[in-house]
Amino acid sequence: MKLRGTMTVKENHLFIGGCDAVELARRFGTPLYVLDEAHLRSQARAYIEGFSRAYPDFKVVYAGKALLTAAICRIIEEEGLYLDVVSGGELYTALFAGFPADRIVFHGNNKSPEELQMALEHGVHRIVVDNLYELELLDAFTRRSGARASILLRVTPGVEAHTHSYIQTGQIDSKFGFGLAGGQAYEATRRALALERVELAGFHCHIGSQIFDLRPFEAAVQVMFGFFDEVRRGLGFVPRELDLGGGLGIRYVEGDVSVDPKFFAEQLAAAVRREAERLGFPLPTLMVEPGRSIVGEAGTTLYTVGSVKEIPGLRTYVAVDGGMADNPRVALYQASYEAVVANKAAEPPSQVVSVAGKYCESGDMLIWDLKVPPLEPGDILAVLATGAYNYSMASNYNRIPRPAMVLVADGAADVIVERETYADLVRLDRIPARLRDARDEAAAARDRAVASSDRERRP
Amino acid sequence: MKLRGTMTVKENHLFIGGCDAVELARRFGTPLYVLDEAHLRSQARAYIEGFSRAYPDFKVVYAGKALLTAAICRIIEEEGLYLDVVSGGELYTALFAGFPADRIVFHGNNKSPEELQMALEHGVHRIVVDNLYELELLDAFTRRSGARASILLRVTPGVEAHTHSYIQTGQIDSKFGFGLAGGQAYEATRRALALERVELAGFHCHIGSQIFDLRPFEAAVQVMFGFFDEVRRGLGFVPRELDLGGGLGIRYVEGDVSVDPKFFAEQLAAAVRREAERLGFPLPTLMVEPGRSIVGEAGTTLYTVGSVKEIPGLRTYVAVDGGMADNPRVALYQASYEAVVANKAAEPPSQVVSVAGKYCESGDMLIWDLKVPPLEPGDILAVLATGAYNYSMASNYNRIPRPAMVLVADGAADVIVERETYADLVRLDRIPARLRDARDEAAAARDRAVASSDRERRP
Repeated sequence: MKLRGTMTVKENHLFIGGCDAVELARRFGTPLYVLDEAHLRSQARAYIEGFSRAYPDFKVVYAGKALLTAAICRIIEEEGLYLDVVSGGELYTALFAGFPADRIVFHGNNKSPEELQMALEHGVHRIVVDNLYELELLDAFTRRSGARASILLRVTPGVEAHTHSYIQTGQIDSKFGFGLAGGQAYEATRRALALERVELAGFHCHIGSQIFDLRPFEAAVQVMFGFFDEVRRGLGFVPRELDLGGGLGIRYVEGDVSVDPKFFAEQLAAAVRREAERLGFPLPTLMVEPGRSIVGEAGTTLYTVGSVKEIPGLRTYVAVDGGMADNPRVALYQASYEAVVANKAAEPPSQVVSVAGKYCESGDMLIWDLKVPPLEPGDILAVLATGAYNYSMASNYNRIPRPAMVLVADGAADVIVERETYADLVRLDRIPARLRDARDEAAAARDRAVASSDRERRP
Repeated sequence: MKLRGTMTVKENHLFIGGCDAVELARRFGTPLYVLDEAHLRSQARAYIEGFSRAYPDFKVVYAGKALLTAAICRIIEEEGLYLDVVSGGELYTALFAGFPADRIVFHGNNKSPEELQMALEHGVHRIVVDNLYELELLDAFTRRSGARASILLRVTPGVEAHTHSYIQTGQIDSKFGFGLAGGQAYEATRRALALERVELAGFHCHIGSQIFDLRPFEAAVQVMFGFFDEVRRGLGFVPRELDLGGGLGIRYVEGDVSVDPKFFAEQLAAAVRREAERLGFPLPTLMVEPGRSIVGEAGTTLYTVGSVKEIPGLRTYVAVDGGMADNPRVALYQASYEAVVANKAAEPPSQVVSVAGKYCESGDMLIWDLKVPPLEPGDILAVLATGAYNYSMASNYNRIPRPAMVLVADGAADVIVERETYADLVRLDRIPARLRDARDEAAAARDRAVASSDRERRP
């Protein structure tokens, strides 16, 4: 069965969070991002509960790059998670939402001096230092301001996870972090320990994304404890924290397996306990950074079907009113998605179609070979598991306004991101004076036309 | 030599449109899109001049999806081009800029009913109809309102161009247009001709993008005239217009050839004359839709260098303050770019580096293996030929504000798109009441913190 979270089917309609998806489409327009609050919260809780049972001292750090809005920050905070931000803009969003700075972990492979200062000024929990330039900047800033920086160093463990395997060499050639193999991580540790107002709490690594197999995580734990041992012996430093990053996979399509966060917590905790005991380390604070696995399956995108084009003997294209700008993952990663026809949710499939987006590009396809009931213009297509890396990567390609997002729970739907309007698209456009000369009459006519068009056409 | 358009090097600095790129970076911040107005205009003029000489009745239609802002609309209009829009948002932008609606061609594979009505209401020059659903909607709307629609039908000619070759079958399986081979185009013509208030002017086809070889265009002309002959014989219809779409390639990197629009005009005109004469047709109005080839090489993106990370024996990563969100083409299409160090423009290269973006993703690389002089933080890297499909596809991934764009000419620089601020990122975020309860104190503190942070940190 395709349905996720609180999804049910009643009277041929798809319901999410107790809300009729067809009614949501009518009320808020399409494309529409719908977020199943209960599912999101239950994923967050599964992480917290799993680690609570399995390990004494842990932090679950939500990776905001998957999806970050002010409302998401509130939910993440309510559920007791920390927040991983990767830019000044994500930090700003968190602060805007009132998220406590001392629960924020600041990431990124090229933080600007301004971003580092902003992080220090607001007193974030940890800055995950990626390179020596950042270390130098932090040293200079903390000396100047008298602030203290609490950091982790990001290391490249040489473990790269794939869906069902991993390799132990490939990721050394990475834009991220300090290599373990080449000695850069050791050298960075030595330098960090020598800094006056920068406190090194431990180390971070991240081995990949959309991982279903937990063995690479166990391999990373081993590699990281090997490095713990190296810095203890060589530098007398006993790391207090181990951040193993994110990467747990979710179920996009049939065949994918949603890994249970509780099982993940158990396995990871066991691996850490084993290595700590083997090498005689106190149990470090354990951090994980799930993003996709918390928010991915909680998201659904509703589209309205437009043209249905049958190319005899070849394929039937069903075009919807969104596509690669609201879900860039298909074009970017050749990602696969499943979908349900929200107003024909109980009808058996009778044909195979391919779902095309409305963007002017052959590559703008959402789903190849989807089994559906007979389709016609006006039908509502619900594409599943779009919570992560859809809205967060959305663009205004073709100058199409970005969709709204609603949070649904217990039959109520609340807008958490307003739909962009046409007026939003030109809000930052400027016409220099030299292109305006002698155009006043036209400009006045334009203002009238646009004002009336905007009132009527607001998408 | 890498330099394009008005670029020069003076005192070790790169100049564009008479402006010191290093000074532009300082004044407007980075990342910064810089648009060379003279180069853009000269490309537009080359099309107009080329066709003026080679063909009696033609329209050069700028494909707005490559880059569309209010200021661009002004320049396009001043140069006498028509404008191709593919959405209500692009149409809105053109109207906002005062671009005359009767010079606008409306495209798209899935125009919504609202978009079609908007196009009719404003009286666009042509609507390029992609499918039967649109034809039905146009029929219904024109009957109801009494308006007339002037249309082209988009046909799929079965010619697919690649950089140096073409095939004559592949593109039949396309989300766009009516297939010639299967008889859909003929049937659509028959239906269109029967409509009361919809006037069919001719046909449109588009064979691909970034094309350097003109033979596929000639093949498309042959195929289209074959179809002209078919509808003349079968339906007594003599098409008045032939729109051959866009697709001319530009020089991204060494080895690419910029095709001269004048040469393109000559070759295309000759092919159309030849076929018209051979089959006894009056010369149709000839339309072409260049986008990338007008604006692509006019654009340059300036970045500031941050961390420089040498992985011994493997690679040196140079990270800049932008990446896949302001230039998604590398991650999307594995596109290649060249770059110049704007503040060391006269210095010979001494090393090979790879340019990484600042987005939290391994795939966020801008250039692999670029020859550069010694680099350090603060250097300004100018990535070339970013005028097309960069800003137009830009996102707020990682909640990073989108860059500003400046138009440079004769030593003057004018902002044509303002830089987004952090406040812009949360402008449409909403926190539902039930997530706000009992949070008033925190919210007040947040407002104070954010207000002060916003003043100081505005990027």
